[in-house]
Amino acid sequence: MGIRLGDNQYGKAEVRLVHVDRSTAVHRIKDVSVTSQLRGDLEAVHTVGDNSTCLPTDTQKNTVYAKAREWGGVGAVEDFALRLARHFVDEHPYVHGARQEVHEYSWDRIATPGGPHDHAFTRRGGETRTTVVTKDGDREWVVSGFEGLTVLKTTGSEFRGYPKTRYTTLPETGDRVLATDVTARWRYTRTGLPFDELYASVRAACLEAFADTHSLALQQTLYAMGEAVLERRPEIAEIRFSMPNNHHILVDLEPFGLDNPNEVFFAADRPYGRIEAAVERDDAPDPGQAWRAVPGFV
Amino acid sequence: MGIRLGDNQYGKAEVRLVHVDRSTAVHRIKDVSVTSQLRGDLEAVHTVGDNSTCLPTDTQKNTVYAKAREWGGVGAVEDFALRLARHFVDEHPYVHGARQEVHEYSWDRIATPGGPHDHAFTRRGGETRTTVVTKDGDREWVVSGFEGLTVLKTTGSEFRGYPKTRYTTLPETGDRVLATDVTARWRYTRTGLPFDELYASVRAACLEAFADTHSLALQQTLYAMGEAVLERRPEIAEIRFSMPNNHHILVDLEPFGLDNPNEVFFAADRPYGRIEAAVERDDAPDPGQAWRAVPGFV
Amino acid sequence: MGIRLGDNQYGKAEVRLVHVDRSTAVHRIKDVSVTSQLRGDLEAVHTVGDNSTCLPTDTQKNTVYAKAREWGGVGAVEDFALRLARHFVDEHPYVHGARQEVHEYSWDRIATPGGPHDHAFTRRGGETRTTVVTKDGDREWVVSGFEGLTVLKTTGSEFRGYPKTRYTTLPETGDRVLATDVTARWRYTRTGLPFDELYASVRAACLEAFADTHSLALQQTLYAMGEAVLERRPEIAEIRFSMPNNHHILVDLEPFGLDNPNEVFFAADRPYGRIEAAVERDDAPDPGQAWRAVPGFV
Amino acid sequence: MGIRLGDNQYGKAEVRLVHVDRSTAVHRIKDVSVTSQLRGDLEAVHTVGDNSTCLPTDTQKNTVYAKAREWGGVGAVEDFALRLARHFVDEHPYVHGARQEVHEYSWDRIATPGGPHDHAFTRRGGETRTTVVTKDGDREWVVSGFEGLTVLKTTGSEFRGYPKTRYTTLPETGDRVLATDVTARWRYTRTGLPFDELYASVRAACLEAFADTHSLALQQTLYAMGEAVLERRPEIAEIRFSMPNNHHILVDLEPFGLDNPNEVFFAADRPYGRIEAAVERDDAPDPGQAWRAVPGFV
Repeated sequence: MGIRLGDNQYGKAEVRLVHVDRSTAVHRIKDVSVTSQLRGDLEAVHTVGDNSTCLPTDTQKNTVYAKAREWGGVGAVEDFALRLARHFVDEHPYVHGARQEVHEYSWDRIATPGGPHDHAFTRRGGETRTTVVTKDGDREWVVSGFEGLTVLKTTGSEFRGYPKTRYTTLPETGDRVLATDVTARWRYTRTGLPFDELYASVRAACLEAFADTHSLALQQTLYAMGEAVLERRPEIAEIRFSMPNNHHILVDLEPFGLDNPNEVFFAADRPYGRIEAAVERDDAPDPGQAWRAVPGFV
Repeated sequence: MGIRLGDNQYGKAEVRLVHVDRSTAVHRIKDVSVTSQLRGDLEAVHTVGDNSTCLPTDTQKNTVYAKAREWGGVGAVEDFALRLARHFVDEHPYVHGARQEVHEYSWDRIATPGGPHDHAFTRRGGETRTTVVTKDGDREWVVSGFEGLTVLKTTGSEFRGYPKTRYTTLPETGDRVLATDVTARWRYTRTGLPFDELYASVRAACLEAFADTHSLALQQTLYAMGEAVLERRPEIAEIRFSMPNNHHILVDLEPFGLDNPNEVFFAADRPYGRIEAAVERDDAPDPGQAWRAVPGFV
Repeated sequence: MGIRLGDNQYGKAEVRLVHVDRSTAVHRIKDVSVTSQLRGDLEAVHTVGDNSTCLPTDTQKNTVYAKAREWGGVGAVEDFALRLARHFVDEHPYVHGARQEVHEYSWDRIATPGGPHDHAFTRRGGETRTTVVTKDGDREWVVSGFEGLTVLKTTGSEFRGYPKTRYTTLPETGDRVLATDVTARWRYTRTGLPFDELYASVRAACLEAFADTHSLALQQTLYAMGEAVLERRPEIAEIRFSMPNNHHILVDLEPFGLDNPNEVFFAADRPYGRIEAAVERDDAPDPGQAWRAVPGFV
Repeated sequence: MGIRLGDNQYGKAEVRLVHVDRSTAVHRIKDVSVTSQLRGDLEAVHTVGDNSTCLPTDTQKNTVYAKAREWGGVGAVEDFALRLARHFVDEHPYVHGARQEVHEYSWDRIATPGGPHDHAFTRRGGETRTTVVTKDGDREWVVSGFEGLTVLKTTGSEFRGYPKTRYTTLPETGDRVLATDVTARWRYTRTGLPFDELYASVRAACLEAFADTHSLALQQTLYAMGEAVLERRPEIAEIRFSMPNNHHILVDLEPFGLDNPNEVFFAADRPYGRIEAAVERDDAPDPGQAWRAVPGFV
């Protein structure tokens, strides 16, 4: 019996980078958080503290900032992550792989009587755009997504026909509020894609499917969202969702002599349902390491 | 020497209420968090555990839900808080005063190819609307506001001419990024006002003043925002702000042979500046208890 | 009618300082977060952006670090805050007052077979110690406290005898779980006190009173805690508490053919009760500005 | 080309259960958060909303509470999770697998002059104990761990000998503060183990190795912790860590005419290093599904 090092990676997390494009009087802003992680010849670092193959996390951080300047900006977060991954793997013989994760926060121009402002912004709120690029030698995978897209339907949702057991107390319902915070991650079939346009397209497909599906179960809504995305965009091999069921509980007003025709709800915190599933093409390319160290179910 | 009870209040915090107006096929949603607190003949509760004058916090919670149904909805959060305060003080002889706080979260209709959806929504993000109504016997005060309105300017901000001391290292700058999360609270001169319209007006005035003021100090921007609000709306007696200075630090790229013409920034978390001030009319009515148990500086 | 500047203050928030005393091989660690705020001749800063009386928040931050070295450490957080306040007010003619707030996080030595470790620590968790020192010219006030001291009793708590109204559904109980997160802030009668010893003493008095009081209402428990503190320590003029009632709801197991003799509870998040009160000496010195910009009810 | 359902699971998350053992006057408390998730014949739920094989998440929640009563308490969280998993899989033919995750919060008895209190407690803070049990048909895996064990060394840590590149600015150091929040997850070789005793043993091994290792890199410290655990406990097949490097940056006090002999530090928030690795036996049994939907690197 012996003890050995298993899978490992290391890097700098949550490098907060704001890039301002001042090339015209109408400034553009890019606000991201970059987590850089590397894999490679790292056994001696762990076993004897030999750092000769350990590119410091501080250097990784410096690289993120320097490359944003060298490359004249960030561009689509997927492309930025890919270029960083290539830099790390290609330039350092002891680095064999990389995981580069980027979160992006959106800003809107402040509306003024004279129109959208040139250089003043308000943070949009809503969902955060995400990407995780994995590189292993020459192979590359891109998994993009979003977190925190909170949606709610006031009708068009039922939940019936489920098994009744000794521990069942839930009554069936033909009309309930359905609410969730969508976390989605989808795997692209390849690199070199118009990622910004794809992101907008996936987001719209998810929202439309959520709105238009008459829901018999949150699982069904989830699947409809995934199907809509895959039908719309052949560039996507699979999509995974993690969606809480944010329970909105009809308040019992009878003790007060009042009815409650689906009008007054208690929005509960915990516990909550949690529905997680992948929707995929049956001819999708092999995922390889695309989901390595990426929480597929969040 | 004796020991005695001082100021006190009690109630139920963060009652999460979602009201759905289904009176037409185009549903409307109101999403609030209500904190109800009461004051009154409460000495014996504290000193000997005599609960005969202690309207349970559970009853306060029930009241919030029941009234949302009885009154056919919530309406402007200020009006809802006022009506709740009046109910508690007027209906219970041992209750002499009330503090009713409401936070409101906004939702947008989901955009679909067929137009804005009738009953599917996405949570807007951005700022939370707030109100604190204080009632003491017959007197009433309304302090409204918002939290978490995050704004940023990429130029039009300098910081110079400050005192230099033994502990100064900050260089002067003629062009910096200015960013903050605005928390504002303003006191109305009276009740019976069009609170929804006023809210939109104050919010717009703040944003426009932030965008249009060439800033020599964050304090100056804050004051300009307050002034803009008071000039626009005579219904407001004073406005108080708490604004962090969310530092965006220009990254030194010289070690890498690169310049950095105000393009690449590190968005720092802590520490941060904190600027707090009230802007008020010199003929404003006395605040009375308006700010009692309301953090004026947050 | 005119518009003018009202109350204001500014400074640097959450300056994270860790001081290591290496004077012997047994290292000691002090881990604090300092928020420095100043008041003074600040009208022109706000109205015209004249910064000549605005000691930069960056300089305040530098001062915190430099003084920790000059003074050979932090000492009791109250003394550190007082010395900082005196430095700012005494050394700068345009600074008339200061508010210095310090939060302290505790660490324990790691236990090893050879005894407590000389220089390795684990963070204790539990409550955060706090102080807010206010200085206005020559006058000084110290308000100390703690946040996040979570306590729970499995019995010895009832809630009965409260008013029954149209909106009452809560049943009376003679035996419930009582749980809360205590936030306490107490005002000292003067400076120059043994603050570390006082802190330990107040904390112990609160815990013992919570444990030993047979509770008829959370208000009564709160009062008993305050009374115990004031009886034990004449150096304290008043103490204020904000205590949520963290509801532990007995789960109804009857549908499953089971009884539940106070054994299985659902620990709810929201809503929660909130009980806030001051307990004070009837001959306490005037509070002056002690509570200015200190949330008395949190 | 077709679209199909991929991996999926669903359940109820964060069921907050507090169990009080009142069998003697010295009460004992168990405070846990249970997340129950099931896998099985769930295709029709997703594709057509047929719920006939969908045991409601509400029923899963009820089961957690009922079983805590039926079984006379919770016991070791691993055993509770295993028994829940077996119940769900064995009792429902359409359920083929389960993932049961439990987090446990610790409480200490309040110290009073008369000794540890019988029924009053204070929450300990510090780390959260975790377990994830995975069951697939007859096979079972147990992965236990903890989160949020924050540790710090004031000396005995260096970082030198790393590659210098175009983007290096970090100076080497022979004496730095080393601080991290340890998240650990270890896989047991089998079920039927004394899990409470094992937990205490792993925790102690981690702390001692952190304290006693002269650190040349955080990776080396991590490996030493894993090695210590595997050497001490043959019941453990592998252990995985995710450890941020919580940077404590020596403050430059030279501008103020002061030296700083490793005494005054700025505790930074972001970015931070992130070191993740597994340490394993070379003869460990196959992990099977042990890590499925368990973030191995957090």
